[in-house]
Amino acid sequence: MDDTIAAIATPLGDGGIHIVRISGPDAWPIACQLFRPAPPQTLETIEPLKVAFGHIHDPATGRILDEVLLTRFVKPHSYTSEDVVEIHGHGGAFVATRILQGVLDQGARLALPGEFTRRAFLHGRLDLTQAEAVADVIHAASDKALSTALSQLQGELSRSLNALYDRLLAVLAQLEAAIDFPEEGLEFERKQAMAQQVSAVQKEIDALIATFRAGRIYREGLNVALVGKPNVGKSSLLNALLKEDRAIVTPHPGTTRDVLEERVRIRDLHLNIVDTAGIRHQPEVIEEEGIKRTRRALGQADLALVLLDLSMPLDANDDMLLDAVGATPRLIVLNKCDRPPQLDTDALAKRFQDETPFPISATTGEGLDALIDRLHARILAGAPSGEGALITRERHRQALAGSRDALQRVTESLNGDLSEDLVAVDLNTALEHLGGLLGKTFVEDLLDQIFDDFCIGK
Amino acid sequence: MDDTIAAIATPLGDGGIHIVRISGPDAWPIACQLFRPAPPQTLETIEPLKVAFGHIHDPATGRILDEVLLTRFVKPHSYTSEDVVEIHGHGGAFVATRILQGVLDQGARLALPGEFTRRAFLHGRLDLTQAEAVADVIHAASDKALSTALSQLQGELSRSLNALYDRLLAVLAQLEAAIDFPEEGLEFERKQAMAQQVSAVQKEIDALIATFRAGRIYREGLNVALVGKPNVGKSSLLNALLKEDRAIVTPHPGTTRDVLEERVRIRDLHLNIVDTAGIRHQPEVIEEEGIKRTRRALGQADLALVLLDLSMPLDANDDMLLDAVGATPRLIVLNKCDRPPQLDTDALAKRFQDETPFPISATTGEGLDALIDRLHARILAGAPSGEGALITRERHRQALAGSRDALQRVTESLNGDLSEDLVAVDLNTALEHLGGLLGKTFVEDLLDQIFDDFCIGK
Repeated sequence: MDDTIAAIATPLGDGGIHIVRISGPDAWPIACQLFRPAPPQTLETIEPLKVAFGHIHDPATGRILDEVLLTRFVKPHSYTSEDVVEIHGHGGAFVATRILQGVLDQGARLALPGEFTRRAFLHGRLDLTQAEAVADVIHAASDKALSTALSQLQGELSRSLNALYDRLLAVLAQLEAAIDFPEEGLEFERKQAMAQQVSAVQKEIDALIATFRAGRIYREGLNVALVGKPNVGKSSLLNALLKEDRAIVTPHPGTTRDVLEERVRIRDLHLNIVDTAGIRHQPEVIEEEGIKRTRRALGQADLALVLLDLSMPLDANDDMLLDAVGATPRLIVLNKCDRPPQLDTDALAKRFQDETPFPISATTGEGLDALIDRLHARILAGAPSGEGALITRERHRQALAGSRDALQRVTESLNGDLSEDLVAVDLNTALEHLGGLLGKTFVEDLLDQIFDDFCIGK
Repeated sequence: MDDTIAAIATPLGDGGIHIVRISGPDAWPIACQLFRPAPPQTLETIEPLKVAFGHIHDPATGRILDEVLLTRFVKPHSYTSEDVVEIHGHGGAFVATRILQGVLDQGARLALPGEFTRRAFLHGRLDLTQAEAVADVIHAASDKALSTALSQLQGELSRSLNALYDRLLAVLAQLEAAIDFPEEGLEFERKQAMAQQVSAVQKEIDALIATFRAGRIYREGLNVALVGKPNVGKSSLLNALLKEDRAIVTPHPGTTRDVLEERVRIRDLHLNIVDTAGIRHQPEVIEEEGIKRTRRALGQADLALVLLDLSMPLDANDDMLLDAVGATPRLIVLNKCDRPPQLDTDALAKRFQDETPFPISATTGEGLDALIDRLHARILAGAPSGEGALITRERHRQALAGSRDALQRVTESLNGDLSEDLVAVDLNTALEHLGGLLGKTFVEDLLDQIFDDFCIGK
């Protein structure tokens, strides 16, 4: 961390503004090599946090590379807690890379993905769950994903975890006192009280673990498999749902359309819809391949949207499909309700006693609002109602489960009258899991894994 | 211009920072509805040009939308010369659009492409050639394109044009004095002197018009048609040239690769290479279609790179090709110089006496540096050696040609002893052309045309 890193902090592409960000001990000296403030300003009169207008020069040629606004941040009052300089130039990929090249030529190193945020973490400005939340804010694709990420970034989860950590630490202190002064020993009542304290923490950890399903779905979206036989209207339904998703102003049409293609916002949530027809507008694949794809999609889905054709009787294809769905949570949707019904809905109701199929028409839009209501309700089913801390990643779940298991052993040991030393070992394990979750202790590999998920420039 | 506009000023996509820009009389009041500065800062203590940390709230729900840095610019000290607020949030397309939506909900209007720069022009902060240069900086794809755009943005062209404009204005003043006081009339010597002044301006305009070829190539790149019969090695040469082009740090691999695919940087310039094989990695198209494509590419090319196979004799395909090239400026390149030569180079030399063919091997790289040297020299052939003003657009050329033609009539009239009124009409026409070029006078249609070329947010 004693070197100086730099990167373009805005997405590449033609835009109105580009930002080159420099962080580290040489951020300001490097900027001074390149920046010529507009008179009467001089390099000496530039105040921290105050925007200065001027030009970036190429020291090699003396030529102007861009008109820019420059902002100097002095440690620790910056994103990374280091000295930081931000150079705001006219948008444009070439000019931005030219400025970056100039910065690198002066001795900065190209930043790795997430390295700015990693430094913020290493300097203690963010803990690890907050650093993760930065990536989640950037990748957020729905209001719920955004508010979950922001509350995590604001430290909601950290505060819960730190409180639990401190409570366990207090128990550990009592234990260690008993170990240090063995003649005093621990009376039964003291042990009982400690077991209760530990057990209370354990319950709160269990409650946090229980938020994982909701947290993950908020963050990643619900994975939905859209299944149905050829021509039942899968693409029509997908298009109808996409049309409902008009929440967003898209100033650069097409820029991100490709990846969002099958991401559908349902009010404050989003779905990742796998259309088992595969690439749309392609001729339907042969049946066997269709069933294979369907099974694969169902295997990864949180929910199956099972599409049947209300205008014709159930056929062998539908049967195969319904068998394939098996125990996957599902919504049964009866398309083409604008045509005369031919499907034996009574037989269907008998088969799926637990739920009422949903009649819709993907072409007329009939029933779509009700389907969206139901989808939304199903996604939120079992989600915590309040605004409390959520966990959102498998890493969180595993750490909490590890902590919980160790605490389970602690309470058993305390009740079973095992030696304080052994209890302390398990309690330490529980603390380590919580500490690892917060990043109090960490291994480089874990950091690599977390920050690789970031873009360069963050 | 009395309304307030807003847009995302950074390219959409996942990045480290996004900027929402607001400009107009309500920029600050709108920001105040959304922004909560971090204590001890309050909205009242935020100084212009000083970066303030805080949060954007959604006034509808009261929830935090993002952690941001906010900068307030007070007119006329801003990009648009209006009150401007820039909100810098965590990168991420969804969160940026959410903030923008919040700004729009408070009464701002989504900006049109280039509308911020258009306002800068309408408020007189930039003239029209400078406004055009902003787009050129953004789209610049080579050092030469960038430096040309920047010198235009810095007013190099404007200063030349304004000087010419003022000189013509001085002549017009003399003429009008003569018209107002007809009893005095214009003596022959005065007329001669005026004709000389006009003619000097005319010469400088001609010199500016002569910079158009270079200016256009700097700005747009040289359009190169890469032609040759199937399997002569067109794709290999293109790939070899692309491999030479390693000037650029690309922090987001793949982001812009598609559009740059056949844009090749040759040192400080760039080429737009049309590979007549069409989409690469596709089986070669049938011969007839090949020749058709070749002719089309040649028709739009500034230069043909004609590829022949040195390892086999000229055949009917080559002949057809060489005929098709006709008078298009060309470089003849003999590929596969790493194999035993079979081509009758003497015959070739006789056919193209004006130039020496270039032996290369696209596979071994032999001769590539020399070819690049030659390409570079050919591109620059006839370009002005100095650093003076250049014109870069057909609009510039047309306006200057219009002005020059009118001045031609002025000198003829002055020499031919026509009435001062008629001379003044032509002189006014010449001034109007120059004024239109600078944007002293303009029609909305012209502005629409110019600013449509911009991205939203600039």
